[in-house]
Amino acid sequence: MNTFGHIYRLTSFGESHGQAIGGVIDGMPSGIDIDLDEVQRQLDRRRPGQSAIVTGRQEKDRIEILSGIFEGKTLGTPIGFIIKNTDQHSNDYEAMRHCYRPSHADLTYQTKYGIRDHRGGGRSSARETASRVVAGALAMQALAGLGIKIHAYTSQIGGIALNRGYESLDLSETDGNAVRCPDRDIAASMESLLKEVKADGDTVGGIVSCVIKGVPAGLGDPVFGKLHARLADAMMSINAAKGFEYGMGFAGASCRGSEVIDSFTAGDGGKIVTASNHSGGIQGGISNGENIYFRIAFKPVATLLKNVDTVNDRGEAIILKARGRHDPCVVPRAVPIVEAMAAIVLLDAVLLNRTARI
Amino acid sequence: MNTFGHIYRLTSFGESHGQAIGGVIDGMPSGIDIDLDEVQRQLDRRRPGQSAIVTGRQEKDRIEILSGIFEGKTLGTPIGFIIKNTDQHSNDYEAMRHCYRPSHADLTYQTKYGIRDHRGGGRSSARETASRVVAGALAMQALAGLGIKIHAYTSQIGGIALNRGYESLDLSETDGNAVRCPDRDIAASMESLLKEVKADGDTVGGIVSCVIKGVPAGLGDPVFGKLHARLADAMMSINAAKGFEYGMGFAGASCRGSEVIDSFTAGDGGKIVTASNHSGGIQGGISNGENIYFRIAFKPVATLLKNVDTVNDRGEAIILKARGRHDPCVVPRAVPIVEAMAAIVLLDAVLLNRTARI
Amino acid sequence: MNTFGHIYRLTSFGESHGQAIGGVIDGMPSGIDIDLDEVQRQLDRRRPGQSAIVTGRQEKDRIEILSGIFEGKTLGTPIGFIIKNTDQHSNDYEAMRHCYRPSHADLTYQTKYGIRDHRGGGRSSARETASRVVAGALAMQALAGLGIKIHAYTSQIGGIALNRGYESLDLSETDGNAVRCPDRDIAASMESLLKEVKADGDTVGGIVSCVIKGVPAGLGDPVFGKLHARLADAMMSINAAKGFEYGMGFAGASCRGSEVIDSFTAGDGGKIVTASNHSGGIQGGISNGENIYFRIAFKPVATLLKNVDTVNDRGEAIILKARGRHDPCVVPRAVPIVEAMAAIVLLDAVLLNRTARI
Amino acid sequence: MNTFGHIYRLTSFGESHGQAIGGVIDGMPSGIDIDLDEVQRQLDRRRPGQSAIVTGRQEKDRIEILSGIFEGKTLGTPIGFIIKNTDQHSNDYEAMRHCYRPSHADLTYQTKYGIRDHRGGGRSSARETASRVVAGALAMQALAGLGIKIHAYTSQIGGIALNRGYESLDLSETDGNAVRCPDRDIAASMESLLKEVKADGDTVGGIVSCVIKGVPAGLGDPVFGKLHARLADAMMSINAAKGFEYGMGFAGASCRGSEVIDSFTAGDGGKIVTASNHSGGIQGGISNGENIYFRIAFKPVATLLKNVDTVNDRGEAIILKARGRHDPCVVPRAVPIVEAMAAIVLLDAVLLNRTARI
Repeated sequence: MNTFGHIYRLTSFGESHGQAIGGVIDGMPSGIDIDLDEVQRQLDRRRPGQSAIVTGRQEKDRIEILSGIFEGKTLGTPIGFIIKNTDQHSNDYEAMRHCYRPSHADLTYQTKYGIRDHRGGGRSSARETASRVVAGALAMQALAGLGIKIHAYTSQIGGIALNRGYESLDLSETDGNAVRCPDRDIAASMESLLKEVKADGDTVGGIVSCVIKGVPAGLGDPVFGKLHARLADAMMSINAAKGFEYGMGFAGASCRGSEVIDSFTAGDGGKIVTASNHSGGIQGGISNGENIYFRIAFKPVATLLKNVDTVNDRGEAIILKARGRHDPCVVPRAVPIVEAMAAIVLLDAVLLNRTARI
Repeated sequence: MNTFGHIYRLTSFGESHGQAIGGVIDGMPSGIDIDLDEVQRQLDRRRPGQSAIVTGRQEKDRIEILSGIFEGKTLGTPIGFIIKNTDQHSNDYEAMRHCYRPSHADLTYQTKYGIRDHRGGGRSSARETASRVVAGALAMQALAGLGIKIHAYTSQIGGIALNRGYESLDLSETDGNAVRCPDRDIAASMESLLKEVKADGDTVGGIVSCVIKGVPAGLGDPVFGKLHARLADAMMSINAAKGFEYGMGFAGASCRGSEVIDSFTAGDGGKIVTASNHSGGIQGGISNGENIYFRIAFKPVATLLKNVDTVNDRGEAIILKARGRHDPCVVPRAVPIVEAMAAIVLLDAVLLNRTARI
Repeated sequence: MNTFGHIYRLTSFGESHGQAIGGVIDGMPSGIDIDLDEVQRQLDRRRPGQSAIVTGRQEKDRIEILSGIFEGKTLGTPIGFIIKNTDQHSNDYEAMRHCYRPSHADLTYQTKYGIRDHRGGGRSSARETASRVVAGALAMQALAGLGIKIHAYTSQIGGIALNRGYESLDLSETDGNAVRCPDRDIAASMESLLKEVKADGDTVGGIVSCVIKGVPAGLGDPVFGKLHARLADAMMSINAAKGFEYGMGFAGASCRGSEVIDSFTAGDGGKIVTASNHSGGIQGGISNGENIYFRIAFKPVATLLKNVDTVNDRGEAIILKARGRHDPCVVPRAVPIVEAMAAIVLLDAVLLNRTARI
Repeated sequence: MNTFGHIYRLTSFGESHGQAIGGVIDGMPSGIDIDLDEVQRQLDRRRPGQSAIVTGRQEKDRIEILSGIFEGKTLGTPIGFIIKNTDQHSNDYEAMRHCYRPSHADLTYQTKYGIRDHRGGGRSSARETASRVVAGALAMQALAGLGIKIHAYTSQIGGIALNRGYESLDLSETDGNAVRCPDRDIAASMESLLKEVKADGDTVGGIVSCVIKGVPAGLGDPVFGKLHARLADAMMSINAAKGFEYGMGFAGASCRGSEVIDSFTAGDGGKIVTASNHSGGIQGGISNGENIYFRIAFKPVATLLKNVDTVNDRGEAIILKARGRHDPCVVPRAVPIVEAMAAIVLLDAVLLNRTARI
């Protein structure tokens, strides 16, 4: 279950403190020009240690492509890649061998498999998402040629929320601050909150919003390949994700139908468009040509810089001492991961849609 | 993309007003005693026309099992089944041939496939979910032998919400009222709201909550088969679903880590348990033995009993006249569908987990 | 494991003496004109009781399409279909409940599943292949529009072999005789042999050859979706198949490279063609535009009209009395099944190939 | 289409002359002790340059495991691995950029993808099979604990065939000679033939036989996961394979049923066994506990050490000059590849069978 996608498929491997992480991307169409610097740039956006508010772990996270790209173009063959684990500090983790950290996956992995790599969370570490960023960055380069563009941004950290829709935001501002919130004032408040939370040795949750523009109508496959269900699956597979909603989302539960139906009207050149977009660009699981937008809730990071009570592998109560380098909030670094998973889903849907008519 | 599941797999077929809907269930383990009356009872729970607040369409929805069950037991071979479409009233729909209903899938199907069965939504109709209820009801019978039990219920309709967790509810009350809310007073308010909404020719959204008890630790497969991601995929594939959250969900975005980490303690017989369950019974994508709970938001039904403005297939503005038989809210009938999809996900996870160790 | 195909997928169900057999075809492109009489005609070719040399079992084998085809065209939605089991004579089989027929699947099913439908082989009966013929007949109608045409024929029964390649045969003669051998003289000898074998209460094996013409270059997906490997998988899944070879096949083991390399030359309009076709139309797993040809060996039918020694389910030696209605050779009826499986593989490959370039 | 298997899955990547080849193995059960030296030993068996009769290309083919194995045991997480391409001599291949070698995949890859890595066959090179040997060697270590053992050997090279079944052979002799034929006299003849063929600048085909002992009854999944169909798919995916047969195989076409049915008798401890094994250990697609045996035909290597006529990418006739280092016959090196693919199929079947009963 380490493969995602039907046609464009990422198979991911790697533990946080093993030799390397990486993956194989199968199903990439041939003949696409690849800019590897741009792939590296996306990896750098996910990398720890980018600013004062994120962890000080300094991995270089250099992408090494091993196959599938030849003289700058995709071959149509699988793209194997690795990212070496260079800043491992495994000794930091020896104390974790017999300890189950609360709200982490230590115990569940141990229970399921009878063994685990206890160093830094092993396979359950969010470090694995670097492989997704690679697959997403490559997918984006294929999608760009089709006019499809994905923008994610931080819309909430703790109690500080961006109470505006994407339409009123300048999304090019997203990377202009450390929290990746395109509203500078809100971003400043979020940064303050994160500093405060960090000073407390605490952590906090948040929300990433994402909009996909330029999506052609017709993507998505009923009834078990609905485009929003694929997006939900993709987003909920990201570490710390607790919720997903698209279009009107949970707010729609309180609405009346007459308030939220999206009337059709004739747009430019006779194209049928919707007057509003409560549907979030998808109807019956198939894109309708409007913007697709959705939100993902992330829980607070479970590793606190405080002593916490827990148990060891003999079931004895112990105190887990505060240590290590961890973000107070995953959300700023989740932004490129959300974009990457969205790109994988979209490219997969584009390719599958090629088979809908002969 | 009409197949769901890895080992226990439902392949669904059927248009709302074709000859029949149905499916094939593959991967059901052999030797399980099957109570077909119970399967029919689950289908009846989903059926339209159960009470004054739901549509008057009276389909018998009789399950016909064609294979895979022999002398009352599963054979391990695929279970083919059909449910005939008997109450079709297709003439009601002739007017829909050239009309795109707002917030329905008429236009997206037409755009994707260049053709559609316009009668009653065709493949995009929620009638398809009857096949899921069959596969879920059979899965529940396999799960019951393992002690796993699934309870869904209505927790919100419009602005009326059940502001209590499942722990404080008597879930056996769920089917005691037409809205399937286990709190009688709230249920009464919800029923009043639905009558009012119906009288207005309008519709309303809502939320279904679900709790799964008796889940063994170890179910779920990182990193792309996380149990909650499978649940999200399953739930978001249900018609009208707009959002999914599990455990602390979206509320977790506002929380501090110190408020929501689930401390481990030694439980009965030395078993390690969690003191709280903000995680929702899943950590790192793998069940931890605690109760799994989640919520699904549903939008208001898009078909109003009011005249609405829309366009025809020539792009011309038309008025869609109010007619037909439709629920003012999908949520009460979504309850058994949510349970069914949860059962499919759980049985699939149980079977996959058999392969984790040799 | 009752689903075949990646994009164009058949999910098959049904026991020989249950209510019905059938299947769901997913991934059929939309907008294809369907001639259901032609589907029925293909089913009739597979049906028992077509001539003196095949079994007298007289099932009507009427195809009933339940979904996915609307006003004569495919919708792009799954095509559900059933074929009722009408001529069941289940009492004939009561004696089989505790008996394991040699070289049948009775014992292996019982061992694997702990239960079986003992009537007529249950799921292991070749009756299941009727569902494949339906999926194949529909695929052929999609392929016909692309100029792809599949011809299978009987090339060996027992010791009587057709020692000529397809190039020198008039394949339109195939259905002109009961054994489906396009050479009338050889066919007559085969028919004589079958009468003799049947009179002996015995059975005999044989070989089906198949050629696919009009295949465009580019079908097939390295390295685990090679076109010939997909064909091998498909053909070996047919009941009684024991071997598969394509192009030069087993004979190539004895050859020198210099004898069998297929030189390239410039063909009409500068198209590169091969001067010979020892490769069988596939190089590196991808079609090269030449004819694809292959052969499948079938074992003798295991049910003899002679008393045979075997054991019952208590492991006691018993004599299985001759009875029932069975073909002396599967090969004539296997011809349409081979064509059907080839059509499923080809249509799937055509659709997958749509995703190779963007 | 670079993934093989359902539960135990190899995803393979890499071009012959790229940075590295490798793969990801998903679904390996946890807790299995791994002997990496034994994995390397299997790789060495496949490696070029082992003797005078095989190519002089000297790659070290060192396996590097990057994840999934921790402190000598499998973690249940994906096993990523690479094998660097160290002896590339890419300049040898510059002449091939515009040339299509006959009976190779140069033209079909170019046609399908519009681009190819022309160096040494790129993705179509048999070098890719090294990844399979790794996955197979790991699978064998899991299977060994279950008592399942796989033996492949050379049974024919050109016209020289080993006309005896595996029962009369001492299979421990297989690696005792360069051709991997367990009969020393026949092996000597085969070696002489290969020297002669090589001296002629020619190549020759052959056959690999394989027997799997210790297989429990119950492996394999009807109707599209039949164990022999999975084996056929696996074997036909190996470069240069042209045919597959199991049990009586093609010879069965000439037999009467009365000659080849495998009578059941009571074996030791009341276990039901077969008196003969024409079925090849599989009945109805499910293993019956007897030995499984099968044969794979390989065509002669297409690269001759002779000048050959072909065309360039402008369709012009050219002469392809003899050069490079190539085996006169693939069969001796195919032996470990056949074993590896068989091991992958068997372990996958063992794991899937864990889900047949609950």
